[in-house]
Amino acid sequence: MSKYQEIREAAYDANMQLPKLGLVLFTFGNVSAADRSAGVFAIKPSGVPYEDLSPQKMVIVDFLGKTVEGDLRPSSDTLTHAVLYKYWENIGGIVHTHSTYATAWAQSLRSIPIYGTTHADHNTVDIPCAPPMSDEMIRGNYEYETGFQIMNALKEKSLGYEEIEMILVGHHAPFTWGKTPEKAVYNSAVLESIAHMALLTEQINGNALRLPASMIKKHYDRKHGADSYYGQ
Amino acid sequence: MSKYQEIREAAYDANMQLPKLGLVLFTFGNVSAADRSAGVFAIKPSGVPYEDLSPQKMVIVDFLGKTVEGDLRPSSDTLTHAVLYKYWENIGGIVHTHSTYATAWAQSLRSIPIYGTTHADHNTVDIPCAPPMSDEMIRGNYEYETGFQIMNALKEKSLGYEEIEMILVGHHAPFTWGKTPEKAVYNSAVLESIAHMALLTEQINGNALRLPASMIKKHYDRKHGADSYYGQ
Amino acid sequence: MSKYQEIREAAYDANMQLPKLGLVLFTFGNVSAADRSAGVFAIKPSGVPYEDLSPQKMVIVDFLGKTVEGDLRPSSDTLTHAVLYKYWENIGGIVHTHSTYATAWAQSLRSIPIYGTTHADHNTVDIPCAPPMSDEMIRGNYEYETGFQIMNALKEKSLGYEEIEMILVGHHAPFTWGKTPEKAVYNSAVLESIAHMALLTEQINGNALRLPASMIKKHYDRKHGADSYYGQ
Amino acid sequence: MSKYQEIREAAYDANMQLPKLGLVLFTFGNVSAADRSAGVFAIKPSGVPYEDLSPQKMVIVDFLGKTVEGDLRPSSDTLTHAVLYKYWENIGGIVHTHSTYATAWAQSLRSIPIYGTTHADHNTVDIPCAPPMSDEMIRGNYEYETGFQIMNALKEKSLGYEEIEMILVGHHAPFTWGKTPEKAVYNSAVLESIAHMALLTEQINGNALRLPASMIKKHYDRKHGADSYYGQ
Repeated sequence: MSKYQEIREAAYDANMQLPKLGLVLFTFGNVSAADRSAGVFAIKPSGVPYEDLSPQKMVIVDFLGKTVEGDLRPSSDTLTHAVLYKYWENIGGIVHTHSTYATAWAQSLRSIPIYGTTHADHNTVDIPCAPPMSDEMIRGNYEYETGFQIMNALKEKSLGYEEIEMILVGHHAPFTWGKTPEKAVYNSAVLESIAHMALLTEQINGNALRLPASMIKKHYDRKHGADSYYGQ
Repeated sequence: MSKYQEIREAAYDANMQLPKLGLVLFTFGNVSAADRSAGVFAIKPSGVPYEDLSPQKMVIVDFLGKTVEGDLRPSSDTLTHAVLYKYWENIGGIVHTHSTYATAWAQSLRSIPIYGTTHADHNTVDIPCAPPMSDEMIRGNYEYETGFQIMNALKEKSLGYEEIEMILVGHHAPFTWGKTPEKAVYNSAVLESIAHMALLTEQINGNALRLPASMIKKHYDRKHGADSYYGQ
Repeated sequence: MSKYQEIREAAYDANMQLPKLGLVLFTFGNVSAADRSAGVFAIKPSGVPYEDLSPQKMVIVDFLGKTVEGDLRPSSDTLTHAVLYKYWENIGGIVHTHSTYATAWAQSLRSIPIYGTTHADHNTVDIPCAPPMSDEMIRGNYEYETGFQIMNALKEKSLGYEEIEMILVGHHAPFTWGKTPEKAVYNSAVLESIAHMALLTEQINGNALRLPASMIKKHYDRKHGADSYYGQ
Repeated sequence: MSKYQEIREAAYDANMQLPKLGLVLFTFGNVSAADRSAGVFAIKPSGVPYEDLSPQKMVIVDFLGKTVEGDLRPSSDTLTHAVLYKYWENIGGIVHTHSTYATAWAQSLRSIPIYGTTHADHNTVDIPCAPPMSDEMIRGNYEYETGFQIMNALKEKSLGYEEIEMILVGHHAPFTWGKTPEKAVYNSAVLESIAHMALLTEQINGNALRLPASMIKKHYDRKHGADSYYGQ
């Protein structure tokens, strides 16, 4: 048995959640699960349909993107995962999808305004949309640079990766992360729901207002603050 | 066996309807069931996924919000439920969800106009949106004040809680209620459907008209009047 | 066994298609099946959930709306069905739903423009929206008058009931019909699909054009003309 | 056993994917599978519901549209398939659906702008909408002319059928194709997803921008270029 069995199974379980939650069509998404002590992560193999996956088919890759174990090619987004694991020391899982509403916001090059408490239960700020990459970055090591584009977008807004666990990559689609792959998948589903409701909010009221600061603070604190008590 | 077995089961059954009706993502919702003679209600425990619920896991709380029986923490919205049970003597169930379309209207801070007979079969007026709470209320006992915000919004429109069994809380999401938890869940599903169709109505006709008074009266009376005969 | 067993089963089977096709929430819809030789029709009982229906629970009613057989109260829309059966001699089934998109068009008081071949495969004209009823009609025998409102709307547009088998009742919702209850249910599903696509068409192109006459004729003729050959 | 057993099964399997992927209502779609060496294709019989299909019910037709084997009438769109097989020598499967979002774009007479990487992973250009046919073509051999309308629309944009495997037929609905029927079905599902997200993108940002050329090239090359490595 692989010494990476635990992350193989964690990555497999988390990947299988994506079709169940309606977040992927065909193979348009992937989840990875990191083993920090071993300095590697397990990730979906490239182009394999979800119904054909198994823990054994997951590919083990190190934080430089080199395959360590596995016969299949890792997801083409592997280098983006690798970069984020390398620089963000406290995350254990990453998810990338092309879920319908979050992707539409990414294609629109707009951050998602914080219109309600569903949003505030998870984030205190608009969900950022990283700007399109420069031609140089695109023509270079594209997936690697995508990781830096994500990190730079957070830096520019003075946001830490533990403060906000989701982002849109302009013209492309969302990435989410978390302490565990399960949490990262949860974040992808939450993001899709927030993205859907934000569009509807603007359609119902063309002059919709962001949540007031007091409300943002209250909702975030009751879930994440020192005296958190949230849970519906 | 708990002497509250009946409301434990009623609350459990009603909570399990929420995912079936497509009204909740993860744990973003909760139902409670009241035992008026005992002065308590059973409510969903905080943060427990629907698939892990059981009647035994429901928490028994009194109308001041104090836990009477149960090992788990009650839903973080418990105080809102408690206030409404305390002041509205004839309700037996309350539901809170973040269902997509009703929540989008709440985020838009707009009441839902009465555009058709699906709406009029259940209400004679626009479904009210309670205004955002003051910073003072938010920073204070937030969930408790949410209950008062709901009651005040009805009072301001001279509506009784037996006349209209659903409301939007501005920036937040819907609450519904009824004589039984089943009826309250029914109301949540009806509200979501009305919310969806009202948005579409405005998209199809930017100058959509409210239902005329004669039609509102007819549809409401045939379902709820002295000589009611409605049932499709 | 009831001598109306055949229409009891036909009405039951057709009613059970409504939830399967996503056309009803709770009991917001009903189908009837006529026996022309006996001068009666079988219709869904009032307010009974679909999962509790059976052929035996259908109510047998004559074309004046009088119950002939059955212990339950017939659907509150029964008189509308009765009027249409009485005046339209060649129909064998009627369906009423509050399906989301068709109802939104009805609430918008707009006929559905003929934007594409999906529409033209079934109708040569815009799907008419009957205007709101007068206060007098509403306060009078409402469901009975709804039948006349439908017939008058077709008459005004010089359309025969065999030429177009679907209509929107303004402020209310759609009715469809056909030679059999199955065909009437088919028409309800087709109408919902056309209603959805017509809204999207206007959202994609604010100046969308109706189908040209030559195309309408071609598509209708290949399905319904003397030399019809259509079938995808 | 039919000597066309292989394409009978391929066509059957591919047709059965359409309802599973949510691309058809009733019989509003069809897939064909070609046997190049025999100069024929298997296609769905006309008007037969998906649940009643079997490999044996597929109809074998030659590239002039003549039935070679089979008791049922082939789909009314058969001549369109035949023309495309005749002129496009490297395709092995064709799909026609009335899927909701792609059909709405076709009804809007607009090509689908390339707004994101989901689109660019599959095409380097806007997905073309063939203009409405002339009255002469419509009144003539309509389905046959539909094939030419598709080929001409690609020609006018200097696009090869191996470069782009999907098109909208104005006022009508989409057609897709590919080396195999499976690939053609895949393309239909991808097109529907792209069509949905493109509409949402325009709703979120009324001035949405097309993907820059560098990004289009990158995404297309990594999936289809000489050194392709794509697979999520």
